[in-house]
Amino acid sequence: MLWVGLLHWPCLDKNGNEIAAAITNLDLHDLSRVCLTYGIVTLYIVHPSQSQLDFAQRIMDHWLKGYGGQYNPLRKRAFELIELVNDIDEIKRRTGALMVGTTATRIKGCISWDDARTLAHARDVCLLFGTGWGISPRLFTAFDAVIEPIAGKGDFNHLSVRSAVSIAVDRIAGR
Amino acid sequence: MLWVGLLHWPCLDKNGNEIAAAITNLDLHDLSRVCLTYGIVTLYIVHPSQSQLDFAQRIMDHWLKGYGGQYNPLRKRAFELIELVNDIDEIKRRTGALMVGTTATRIKGCISWDDARTLAHARDVCLLFGTGWGISPRLFTAFDAVIEPIAGKGDFNHLSVRSAVSIAVDRIAGR
Repeated sequence: MLWVGLLHWPCLDKNGNEIAAAITNLDLHDLSRVCLTYGIVTLYIVHPSQSQLDFAQRIMDHWLKGYGGQYNPLRKRAFELIELVNDIDEIKRRTGALMVGTTATRIKGCISWDDARTLAHARDVCLLFGTGWGISPRLFTAFDAVIEPIAGKGDFNHLSVRSAVSIAVDRIAGR
Repeated sequence: MLWVGLLHWPCLDKNGNEIAAAITNLDLHDLSRVCLTYGIVTLYIVHPSQSQLDFAQRIMDHWLKGYGGQYNPLRKRAFELIELVNDIDEIKRRTGALMVGTTATRIKGCISWDDARTLAHARDVCLLFGTGWGISPRLFTAFDAVIEPIAGKGDFNHLSVRSAVSIAVDRIAGR
């Protein structure tokens, strides 16, 4: 089985400082729709601040219990995949899955996309993505593996997290 | 060479009626970043209404000429890929490329993703995506080809256009 986690802390800002990034409404929409499309079990939205999780819950309630779900029942189905947690330890407890990180910067010992796909078909895996300018590298030691960056054709490697999750999930779980 | 066009008309709404969809700020950001990552020549934002194109131009000016470009020069590089046009005829005139549409609903005669990748490596191609609930099917007759839907694991086929473009460009132009 495959899970996805979107981390908001510890992440980097554009100057390389560690931050907690704010939860973004559209991330919940776009990522839950990708996850439902590809059979992901749960999309974990990870933030250490309860007020940020409360904000996410208010958005979710609009689609799960409020007018949103009547207006667009398909969006309701997508939002049903989301769970809110404080940290990746909670994901580990709930899933027992291998924690597999992603990065836009190549790190030593990273695995290939082919390796990651093979791993995710053999074992339970949670793919982890960072908001802001990506997951703080100090967290990589807590992961079971980190996948190589999504390489394009040049030196530009600044995909939105919405694009990165979409491409990664297609590479790992697509036909 | 490969181009991408984001159509806002003629598109469908959720009831199947033909509409012109509004231009969305985040589409410009996410799609231009994907396009720059994968070496796309130009991202065409297509809208028949000049006031909508003016709105897009104001966003672009913030990143190309205003404070945005100082704050985040990488975002400026991405926005440099965007051109605003009224219709796909203008894209044809500027590029001479084959017009290759996308759809979330399987249509008769659609080509596979493998076929589309082969085509885009042999010929100049512009990939066309629809906002709202996708490109109006009546436009398909004006295209040189239409690619099969992005298939996931179940019946849900409601990716955001940001996800759809990301996955499609990776499938066509990724390594």
